[in-house]
Amino acid sequence: MNITLEQAEKAISAAKQKSTEIDTKMNIAVVDAGANLVAFGRMDGAWLGSLDISIKKAKTARFFDMNTGIIGELSQPGGSLYNIEHSNNGLITFPGGIPIKNASGDVIGAIGVSGSSVENDHTVAEAGATAI
Amino acid sequence: MNITLEQAEKAISAAKQKSTEIDTKMNIAVVDAGANLVAFGRMDGAWLGSLDISIKKAKTARFFDMNTGIIGELSQPGGSLYNIEHSNNGLITFPGGIPIKNASGDVIGAIGVSGSSVENDHTVAEAGATAI
Amino acid sequence: MNITLEQAEKAISAAKQKSTEIDTKMNIAVVDAGANLVAFGRMDGAWLGSLDISIKKAKTARFFDMNTGIIGELSQPGGSLYNIEHSNNGLITFPGGIPIKNASGDVIGAIGVSGSSVENDHTVAEAGATAI
Amino acid sequence: MNITLEQAEKAISAAKQKSTEIDTKMNIAVVDAGANLVAFGRMDGAWLGSLDISIKKAKTARFFDMNTGIIGELSQPGGSLYNIEHSNNGLITFPGGIPIKNASGDVIGAIGVSGSSVENDHTVAEAGATAI
Repeated sequence: MNITLEQAEKAISAAKQKSTEIDTKMNIAVVDAGANLVAFGRMDGAWLGSLDISIKKAKTARFFDMNTGIIGELSQPGGSLYNIEHSNNGLITFPGGIPIKNASGDVIGAIGVSGSSVENDHTVAEAGATAI
Repeated sequence: MNITLEQAEKAISAAKQKSTEIDTKMNIAVVDAGANLVAFGRMDGAWLGSLDISIKKAKTARFFDMNTGIIGELSQPGGSLYNIEHSNNGLITFPGGIPIKNASGDVIGAIGVSGSSVENDHTVAEAGATAI
Repeated sequence: MNITLEQAEKAISAAKQKSTEIDTKMNIAVVDAGANLVAFGRMDGAWLGSLDISIKKAKTARFFDMNTGIIGELSQPGGSLYNIEHSNNGLITFPGGIPIKNASGDVIGAIGVSGSSVENDHTVAEAGATAI
Repeated sequence: MNITLEQAEKAISAAKQKSTEIDTKMNIAVVDAGANLVAFGRMDGAWLGSLDISIKKAKTARFFDMNTGIIGELSQPGGSLYNIEHSNNGLITFPGGIPIKNASGDVIGAIGVSGSSVENDHTVAEAGATAI
């Protein structure tokens, strides 16, 4: 089961709305179950460096079927997954990446958001993930 | 002067419509004047390998402010730009990438389309580029 | 629909048998519908450089849902897809990569074989692809 | 002296069995004495991001002929090998990679396992390494 472009665009639209509500400018990426990009949008004036980060967050969330921030807790110095970020051509392990599930609970893709504080990034990603 | 997300989404929407009209499934990418991705959409069932190609076509078109196919004519064996594709982490120099201009004729970005014959790719890219 | 590890191992086993029959030593890779590696085997004494080629052949076949050799005919100098190999971190477009379909005709993955002439590579890949 | 494909497949088979016993889903990679992939298997439903990690663990274990977790102890902030992960296109230095030796004690390859906790990854890797 794979996310459709219509679903991905719906997620991005919901994320953009939330981003505007909280007065931020975001890069928003959605990948499918194979961790390949389905849709992307960069809001006017959003950080350019967050483009790649948002895509890497979405991929990271699908790579391990969990929120990116959870991995970041384990990849700290002394943690069990220290420096896991060196795999897969670069992971991003702070908050802002969330798996997207269908009604049956299967992971069909993931969303990654970057452009503000990690708290705001997560809030916007959640708005996108839950819109489907 | 830079393309806005709203303009990029309008271009993708027009490109999707044209793609459906001619019964194809496309990957569609729009970059800004800095050759950085602004928006992207992969239609359901479109070739997975065309994801990267559509983005590279859009970048290539903006890198040189011309249609990608024109560069491809010069990059052939014996041509003046032979194997220019090795630069910039990989160019795509066959048709499907077109610069996007504003009313004043300034290049504000580019669109790249991949997923069918290069003629169809170009047709769909043109539909997107002229929608703005 | 995605290929299973059991199916992938069956394909590799059939490919190895065919490879031995025609007295060759092969690298054999199987990717899933997302173009991600599922299983791989390098026969003793097979060319080391064919490791990466077999994986790239499998990915290329899934990226465009066609035999790799077909793309190679179009990517020649003067061809419509000249130098497409620069995309997707490197394609391999000579024979030896074949999509794998299920009973319904859906592409569920692909196999890539490298280690001998391209004719032999294709023969061995076909033995693997049709074993499922 | 180099690991054979038959030995590598035996190691993967033993690792898969152990993985099933402890109710995990693993990516399992075996490299030879040259640190090049010999065989690989991704169990159905295993984390996609663990594909690359399992290969990197196997390579890391052979690169330095020691368990990956030992390197991870030295690569911490302030440690003697701080950030060694930046070398060799990315190392993985937490547990799950183990050198494989022949009866004479020579290193003939290595196994890397990823898909669960690092303790489970190591347990499964050990089952594979000792099967030869």
